[in-house]
Amino acid sequence: MDITSIGGIVLAIACILGGQALEGGHASSLMQATAAIIVLGGTFGAVAVANPMPDFIRGLKMAKDVFKSTKNDIPELIKQVVDLAGVARREGVLALEQRLGELKDPFLKRAVGFLVDGVDAAVARDSLEAQIHAEYDEAAVAAKIYESAGGFAPTVGILGAVLGLIHVMENLSDPSKLGGGIATAFVATVYGVGAANLFFLPMAAKLKRKLVIARERKTLIAEGVLSIQAGLNPRVLEEKLAAYAGGHAHAGGDKEKK
Amino acid sequence: MDITSIGGIVLAIACILGGQALEGGHASSLMQATAAIIVLGGTFGAVAVANPMPDFIRGLKMAKDVFKSTKNDIPELIKQVVDLAGVARREGVLALEQRLGELKDPFLKRAVGFLVDGVDAAVARDSLEAQIHAEYDEAAVAAKIYESAGGFAPTVGILGAVLGLIHVMENLSDPSKLGGGIATAFVATVYGVGAANLFFLPMAAKLKRKLVIARERKTLIAEGVLSIQAGLNPRVLEEKLAAYAGGHAHAGGDKEKK
Amino acid sequence: MDITSIGGIVLAIACILGGQALEGGHASSLMQATAAIIVLGGTFGAVAVANPMPDFIRGLKMAKDVFKSTKNDIPELIKQVVDLAGVARREGVLALEQRLGELKDPFLKRAVGFLVDGVDAAVARDSLEAQIHAEYDEAAVAAKIYESAGGFAPTVGILGAVLGLIHVMENLSDPSKLGGGIATAFVATVYGVGAANLFFLPMAAKLKRKLVIARERKTLIAEGVLSIQAGLNPRVLEEKLAAYAGGHAHAGGDKEKK
Amino acid sequence: MDITSIGGIVLAIACILGGQALEGGHASSLMQATAAIIVLGGTFGAVAVANPMPDFIRGLKMAKDVFKSTKNDIPELIKQVVDLAGVARREGVLALEQRLGELKDPFLKRAVGFLVDGVDAAVARDSLEAQIHAEYDEAAVAAKIYESAGGFAPTVGILGAVLGLIHVMENLSDPSKLGGGIATAFVATVYGVGAANLFFLPMAAKLKRKLVIARERKTLIAEGVLSIQAGLNPRVLEEKLAAYAGGHAHAGGDKEKK
Amino acid sequence: MDITSIGGIVLAIACILGGQALEGGHASSLMQATAAIIVLGGTFGAVAVANPMPDFIRGLKMAKDVFKSTKNDIPELIKQVVDLAGVARREGVLALEQRLGELKDPFLKRAVGFLVDGVDAAVARDSLEAQIHAEYDEAAVAAKIYESAGGFAPTVGILGAVLGLIHVMENLSDPSKLGGGIATAFVATVYGVGAANLFFLPMAAKLKRKLVIARERKTLIAEGVLSIQAGLNPRVLEEKLAAYAGGHAHAGGDKEKK
Repeated sequence: MDITSIGGIVLAIACILGGQALEGGHASSLMQATAAIIVLGGTFGAVAVANPMPDFIRGLKMAKDVFKSTKNDIPELIKQVVDLAGVARREGVLALEQRLGELKDPFLKRAVGFLVDGVDAAVARDSLEAQIHAEYDEAAVAAKIYESAGGFAPTVGILGAVLGLIHVMENLSDPSKLGGGIATAFVATVYGVGAANLFFLPMAAKLKRKLVIARERKTLIAEGVLSIQAGLNPRVLEEKLAAYAGGHAHAGGDKEKK
Repeated sequence: MDITSIGGIVLAIACILGGQALEGGHASSLMQATAAIIVLGGTFGAVAVANPMPDFIRGLKMAKDVFKSTKNDIPELIKQVVDLAGVARREGVLALEQRLGELKDPFLKRAVGFLVDGVDAAVARDSLEAQIHAEYDEAAVAAKIYESAGGFAPTVGILGAVLGLIHVMENLSDPSKLGGGIATAFVATVYGVGAANLFFLPMAAKLKRKLVIARERKTLIAEGVLSIQAGLNPRVLEEKLAAYAGGHAHAGGDKEKK
Repeated sequence: MDITSIGGIVLAIACILGGQALEGGHASSLMQATAAIIVLGGTFGAVAVANPMPDFIRGLKMAKDVFKSTKNDIPELIKQVVDLAGVARREGVLALEQRLGELKDPFLKRAVGFLVDGVDAAVARDSLEAQIHAEYDEAAVAAKIYESAGGFAPTVGILGAVLGLIHVMENLSDPSKLGGGIATAFVATVYGVGAANLFFLPMAAKLKRKLVIARERKTLIAEGVLSIQAGLNPRVLEEKLAAYAGGHAHAGGDKEKK
Repeated sequence: MDITSIGGIVLAIACILGGQALEGGHASSLMQATAAIIVLGGTFGAVAVANPMPDFIRGLKMAKDVFKSTKNDIPELIKQVVDLAGVARREGVLALEQRLGELKDPFLKRAVGFLVDGVDAAVARDSLEAQIHAEYDEAAVAAKIYESAGGFAPTVGILGAVLGLIHVMENLSDPSKLGGGIATAFVATVYGVGAANLFFLPMAAKLKRKLVIARERKTLIAEGVLSIQAGLNPRVLEEKLAAYAGGHAHAGGDKEKK
Repeated sequence: MDITSIGGIVLAIACILGGQALEGGHASSLMQATAAIIVLGGTFGAVAVANPMPDFIRGLKMAKDVFKSTKNDIPELIKQVVDLAGVARREGVLALEQRLGELKDPFLKRAVGFLVDGVDAAVARDSLEAQIHAEYDEAAVAAKIYESAGGFAPTVGILGAVLGLIHVMENLSDPSKLGGGIATAFVATVYGVGAANLFFLPMAAKLKRKLVIARERKTLIAEGVLSIQAGLNPRVLEEKLAAYAGGHAHAGGDKEKK
């Protein structure tokens, strides 16, 4: 579980409702079905128009990735690649075929498969980079539905507020309805601004960052395996991969002290 | 038909009018000819000034593309290109001439035509890439009229609102007109913000994404046919194209589970 | 004349004043000399500070380009270049010298002049590309004064509105002045927002687009003439230039149906 | 003196104060020490936090560059470089040593110095480009303090306004203070928005543009001197430099009529 | 200590509270626990959701870097590298091994280590550049939590204000609570806007700038050591490094007078 994602949402909601309660407000006055229908329905609709079906569905499925923890396996990965480089140096590239079964990472497996099949280095690089690129692009497009929701929600919230105010203005002759009506109108603003800033935009940011980390991880694998094909010395390879990984090369620690 | 486009617009309007009705407002109070004239006329005019005639007309014609479904034919396309690669390998590039008639995609036909005509590889690549680029750029410029409409509509809406408020302020001595007048003014805001966020901006986003997908599809064709010319092994070619296509390589499914 | 530019401005103003009139407002209440002085003077001043004198003057001169029609001469241009390629192929590059007089486009003339003078291909490409680049950059910088005016106008309008409101607030004891005073204040907002969204920003967009089209046209010429120098087959050259031109290659029509 | 910078500021202030006076307002009501302290102090503080000391100080010193005129010496410069090319062609590169003393521009002197010292062309290009780059980057970073001030000023102005409004709200029981208090609050907005849009942002834009022009000037020198080293024909060199310079090649005139 | 960071924050707060006091307001009316809970808790929560745990924690730790002074050691660094180049020229690259112990900068040490180990120049460059890149990227991502906090704080502040206004509106029947209630609501705006513009955004800008300076410093080291490996003349190397360093090459002074 991604502790900051869950803790962050819990903290944000607790502080906002808690602050509201401390001030003497009732959480119940923030529960308004009509405002919710307008803001969430309008935002959902706008996002659906803005995104093709497959991106939309994939994006909805990615919501759970926000809360799933991604562990840093870069150190083991480097170890594994350097290990393979050692095997290739001692016993030749073909000896890697027996190791294919042990490799659990599908991308690493595919890259080593190219080596074993004797695919030309330029073709292998082109293929691996195209895959990294295509997978990242597709996932990033899907993750963007949260960014797009975060963009539409506040304006749809304002739309809801203005609709409410129009209603209020038409009943101006009955002052007793004034305050409550405006309060209702404001709730739509709270829903729009809150949904965007506490959910959609932070979720989009976290997903995007996780995708970048996943892409860097695959780039590391591709660089490593292509360096084995180029016959790089395992010790130099380890140095190089550690440089590519930066601080990730050390499980859970910042490498550089500045 | 593009279900998310149509469903999204229906949902957004239903939720907003439904929410409005639930709150006791009348949809009729949102129907204001003057506000519509100011907002739509002003926005339409600003977009016309901002865009040259051909882009403007092409952009208007593209509106229907938002609602047209684009089916994912990448898997068949890859099959077709790999098939052609097999023919070229077995019987030589000239044997592709007989297949030209079977090719329905005009871009694929043109690319294979270069092969058959023996056009130099560098010239063919340059020509195909220039065409992909030029077609995308032109279409993207046309699609941008919706982005530009989405940018002008809210400010023109505010213009309409301020115009309405000026009118209200001049009649401040007659309080009975106050509420209704302000309501009228607010409707212009609703039109501007609503048109931008429920129509123009989502339409622009969907068109842009569809153009990117079409460009990637053509890039795939170009890469495939140029690889045939370079004599790439059909099996490696299939791998390579699948890498370029990413998740699109599998009809309607996400390839990668993360 | 550029019909969309003129028609767009007329339409926008007609709709806004018409809507205003329909609502019962008087156009005269939008005529306020003080608001105009504050908003236009302030914006003009800010734009002058932000831009060096030559850019500023050139930008002012470019205003007329917004309304001048630019006809699509790409098809004739391609024909002309292909024609020159044929001459060069049949009679040698030096035979182009007699054609120099017939060439009306100064950039085409200069490019063919390099050919005839036997300037080295790399130097010719460098020179032509540098010229395209430099001319575009300079013109784009000048066109940007409208973008910068479109950025300053709304905030200066708000400045004018706040100044008006300060004045109103100081006279709060005399309620009869309240409405009219606020109306005056709002007119500054209308001027700022209107000038930016109906004039400055659309003009900036149109100028920018026209400059891009002019740059693409010159790039086409440069590519064509350099291909003649490289001895490209006229028929292949025609294909290549059509690819560079995209839909512009067919006078007034969209080449690609999607 | 840069006439547009000074004229622009004078015009903007005159129009705003003049408009204010025409409307019957007193300039004195815009003079509020507290608002000035809050807005200028807060903005100055935020800019200081945002920028390292040396950038901050250099940025302050650059303020005068906004008002200093930069004359276009590109035509003489091209003449001078072409002249040096002629000398180098006739008498050899070493003959340039006697001309070193005549060169007043320090960057041109340094570039020609490389030629005379026989520094390798690749090293000379690398060195000159690195210097252009480093000097531009540093100056641009310093110029950005005005952009950053232009970003902070309006929000600090709003901060000041809200602070004023809080004060007003606490004294709501005394209506006589209401108008004046709100006016005071609005002055902070005027200071923030005005300082950003009439001073900071236009100054940042002008400085940035002047730095770009200075960089292009140095790029021209570097290209010219490196072309001398490459033995380019003086006449072709003149053509090439004119292309790099675009319209600047002709003192004070637009080269291209479109 | 970074004087502008500390002085800037002190100045900004002093001016704002001082201005507030001069106007007759009480600092105490700005101390509101509920507003603080809503704004800070909500912002903290949103930032936690938006950023993975390691970035979040590293970002928090970097807060102190804003206030730590970074001294300009570029001149000594250039001297040291030129010195090493001299040793390498006179006594060969292996002689640098004895100098390794004297090198205090870990990155310089690592780069010279590659030289001494005889690592291939391309591999060394690749490795050093990858490390510079990876370290910068990671640190920049961590520094971005302040940018993200600066983005969320104002909207969460508005959320708090709207929540407060809803509460006020519900108690509209008791006018005595009106002013104080609205004041409370405004304090949330002040907290959100103030936290973003006086703390988060300036801190993000300063951190980002310091990271860029650190990256340029490492690029200088890498270029220098790789030039030693390429056998560049120490005197030319010194010129080149000074060009890379721009104004930083002279301790505390601006090199170029314009």
